[in-house]
Amino acid sequence: MTRKEIEESYRDLQLHICQALEAIDGQATFVEDPWIREEGGGGFTRTISNGRVFEKGGVAFSAVHGPVSIVMKKQLNLEGEHFFATGVSIVLHPKHPRHPIIHMNVRYFELDNGSTYWFGGGIDLTPHFVDLTLAVDFHQQLKDTSDQYSSDFYPKFKEWADRYFYLPHREESRGIGGIFYDHLDESCGLSKADLFQYSLSLGRLFPVAYKHQVDSIELNDVTEAELNWQALRRGRYVEFNLLHDRGTKFGIYSGGRTESILMSMPPRANWEYNLEFEAGSEEAETLAFLKKTHDFIKR
Amino acid sequence: MTRKEIEESYRDLQLHICQALEAIDGQATFVEDPWIREEGGGGFTRTISNGRVFEKGGVAFSAVHGPVSIVMKKQLNLEGEHFFATGVSIVLHPKHPRHPIIHMNVRYFELDNGSTYWFGGGIDLTPHFVDLTLAVDFHQQLKDTSDQYSSDFYPKFKEWADRYFYLPHREESRGIGGIFYDHLDESCGLSKADLFQYSLSLGRLFPVAYKHQVDSIELNDVTEAELNWQALRRGRYVEFNLLHDRGTKFGIYSGGRTESILMSMPPRANWEYNLEFEAGSEEAETLAFLKKTHDFIKR
Repeated sequence: MTRKEIEESYRDLQLHICQALEAIDGQATFVEDPWIREEGGGGFTRTISNGRVFEKGGVAFSAVHGPVSIVMKKQLNLEGEHFFATGVSIVLHPKHPRHPIIHMNVRYFELDNGSTYWFGGGIDLTPHFVDLTLAVDFHQQLKDTSDQYSSDFYPKFKEWADRYFYLPHREESRGIGGIFYDHLDESCGLSKADLFQYSLSLGRLFPVAYKHQVDSIELNDVTEAELNWQALRRGRYVEFNLLHDRGTKFGIYSGGRTESILMSMPPRANWEYNLEFEAGSEEAETLAFLKKTHDFIKR
Repeated sequence: MTRKEIEESYRDLQLHICQALEAIDGQATFVEDPWIREEGGGGFTRTISNGRVFEKGGVAFSAVHGPVSIVMKKQLNLEGEHFFATGVSIVLHPKHPRHPIIHMNVRYFELDNGSTYWFGGGIDLTPHFVDLTLAVDFHQQLKDTSDQYSSDFYPKFKEWADRYFYLPHREESRGIGGIFYDHLDESCGLSKADLFQYSLSLGRLFPVAYKHQVDSIELNDVTEAELNWQALRRGRYVEFNLLHDRGTKFGIYSGGRTESILMSMPPRANWEYNLEFEAGSEEAETLAFLKKTHDFIKR
């Protein structure tokens, strides 16, 4: 399997996901923005906005290569001269506060023509209001897909997501987590081809998993209180991405393409000083839920 | 001059500024939130919201002390065992898009009972739409106050602000700058007492400078386009504070009091992918203006 094949499959995956998301939205379509990276490679950033379901979101594909810069060496601890990286990265902010925010990323990285390589990725869900049944469904889907490759993956990558999608300054999880993995190579016992297939399986699961959420949620007429809470939760999403998300920070500090990196920003976010909610309210319960990690699937 | 005197003067300064800002607002008043730092000291965070002029803002005072932590040693390059820090920190987000966002900070830091000390501070202005006359007025006020202490200060600290309040990932200044300084001690030629007085003079200038802006701006009925642009500029403000501002990052990563640090967040911020404005529009002109630094006061 060549890097060209991986790159092409990821580009196909991007188009497949966009098509599936357009079907879910039923109204808005993606706009494609091609860009070229001066040092080598480029990408196609596809964004959607003001849809029936999706208020703002992006499905980005990129394949970039070039010399390993000093920043990369330092930040990523890389031993090598030339790198190649390709992947698909997604963040979707839904219009309705009862629909969850979702994020996905699959990526492949190699140094010096593949002498070293690894895969990374994950999917995680950030509901504005937590629905436990749907949280369990989401984790079950991730487990089912992961189990086809290794029964070690789900428990290990679920914990990784719990650690990763955490806002220490708020002592809060970003959402209900999901799976997250990085630096995955043959040392885990699977072949490179299988690891690649795993990332594609996750990519294909992505729109299916989101559709299941949307199909299962009965929408009320949205209230001002719900919209306000959504905007506040989006504020936390902004805080996570700009303060803690390694991909975002690395991209920004190393001179990546700002618009593609920050396509993860919500259309609108609010902040209030010392936010407090009445005990027993849905907002207070969501906050309390996010203070802990949860085993959604009983062992 | 003892650290106790500096601390008390800064607390008085906070109250003086709040009173002056309440007079400017004419409607909303500050709410005081006292807090205690487990390792030593504490503060009074005062916030204002939903005023006639101020939509969301805070004037924070703190005086904290304790052992120099590993994070502080590493991040601040400190050689000492115990520190004391006191200061006043302000960010105000006005309701009307024609009023500018303003930020101020004055602070005093000492190690091991004053064997080493320094002052830091600054005031800078972030108009959503740049008015050149008012930008010049603002810089003139900063220069006049600074010149009373040293004619070196304004030119040096103005350039420092230009460098500091810059978003490299956007290739944009945050606003029209102002002054910024740090690690200022007797080696600059002024006594500790004078440096302290300089910080107080800046603090007293702060409400005067903001009042001049507000008094000079004739308000139209706000339009949707203006509000949208304000929300987008606030998005940039969020990006600066969470990605680049050293104070915010240090506070968050070292376990500071999150609500006080993030009182700088706007009430609401928007993001749009690949934002573009018609050539010649006020928005496009503001963006073009922020691409360069400017000498507001001819030398």
